[in-house]
Amino acid sequence: MTITITAFEASPDQGRGLARDMRVRWALEEAGLAYRVELVSFAQMKQAPYLRQQPFGQIPVYREDDLTLFETGAIVFHIAQHHGALLPAAPDARARAITWMFAALNTVEPPIIEREQAHFTVGSRPWFSELTAVMDERARVRLAQLSDHLGDGAWLDGDFSAADLLMVLVLRRIEGDGILEAFPNLIAYVARGESRPAYQRAYAAQEKVYTDRVSQDLRG
Amino acid sequence: MTITITAFEASPDQGRGLARDMRVRWALEEAGLAYRVELVSFAQMKQAPYLRQQPFGQIPVYREDDLTLFETGAIVFHIAQHHGALLPAAPDARARAITWMFAALNTVEPPIIEREQAHFTVGSRPWFSELTAVMDERARVRLAQLSDHLGDGAWLDGDFSAADLLMVLVLRRIEGDGILEAFPNLIAYVARGESRPAYQRAYAAQEKVYTDRVSQDLRG
Repeated sequence: MTITITAFEASPDQGRGLARDMRVRWALEEAGLAYRVELVSFAQMKQAPYLRQQPFGQIPVYREDDLTLFETGAIVFHIAQHHGALLPAAPDARARAITWMFAALNTVEPPIIEREQAHFTVGSRPWFSELTAVMDERARVRLAQLSDHLGDGAWLDGDFSAADLLMVLVLRRIEGDGILEAFPNLIAYVARGESRPAYQRAYAAQEKVYTDRVSQDLRG
Repeated sequence: MTITITAFEASPDQGRGLARDMRVRWALEEAGLAYRVELVSFAQMKQAPYLRQQPFGQIPVYREDDLTLFETGAIVFHIAQHHGALLPAAPDARARAITWMFAALNTVEPPIIEREQAHFTVGSRPWFSELTAVMDERARVRLAQLSDHLGDGAWLDGDFSAADLLMVLVLRRIEGDGILEAFPNLIAYVARGESRPAYQRAYAAQEKVYTDRVSQDLRG
């Protein structure tokens, strides 16, 4: 079995592990699976051959022999189900972990991405700070609810699972703005995820794409 | 086995099938499963007993004997996996259908919900029309990509699946604003979903909650 994923040739985050290939890299590392990476440019991602694999023109695409998947939630689930120990075996615990996978992507992530997007699309408008206040509040409400749920637990529901993997990476996107920092248990939760050896291998691999590119540019 | 779901006592959509219990009702009808409904008020949803079941204070919660789930994606997946024919049996086709479930909820839904939310939170600000133009464009790009993928196919990938169930209901939320209407194949796709007998039974059941309430109010 050969696993290939796509990733940004030039990630906008400059190798800080915020691009979505990080989710799949981390899951693959947790499962102990080797993979190859196909770097794609922004131009390529909008062209027909790529869109046939990923109709929304995003990274990552995941290929495993004849199977092509996209959507990080689905890819991480596929890896967990077929290759890894990222979901509990007991049916009820497994269903609850899947609940938290969807919660990460459909409840917690949207207000975080919305803030990010607004920064790019309307960040220069005179009313941006008014909009930001509203969006920050929406994100804060979700994080407060998540923080209340987590309490002093280590992970969302029992042992570390695919849901924690997704949630930690969703939360990393809002680090440093003061919003996440109001919830010490969420900060500790993110740090707990980042300290896993599989996370660190995945992080180093995606960072290397950026540093290789910089040193290539320096050499001209 | 007894299945219970929660739904709005007073749905803001006045029984038009836009609340998220509709997703679970439809899936249960497709699977031929009976269920009971527990109506909850907005006040109840913010209180500790409800938050212990649904940390984000939303509907629906799904209970099946000792198992409590939330997140419609996870609930629909659970129903498909354990009780229904909402996902293909062949592993690759199944993985692709799950991909489209996540695409409905993590790629197509967020810009649609973002528009809706903005209407409620900043709809009265003088700059709302400027923001709307940007948000409409974001939604339009996603719908155009989805429309290109669907082409003249009946469903997203092969036969009707849990992914179509979610996608049809996500698209219904943006009906009538002129944005979805630019894509005749998506309009036909939504109509195709709505014509399924299971959809119609689910719709009637959630509409009845509203009409019962209205007639109760009229009787005083």
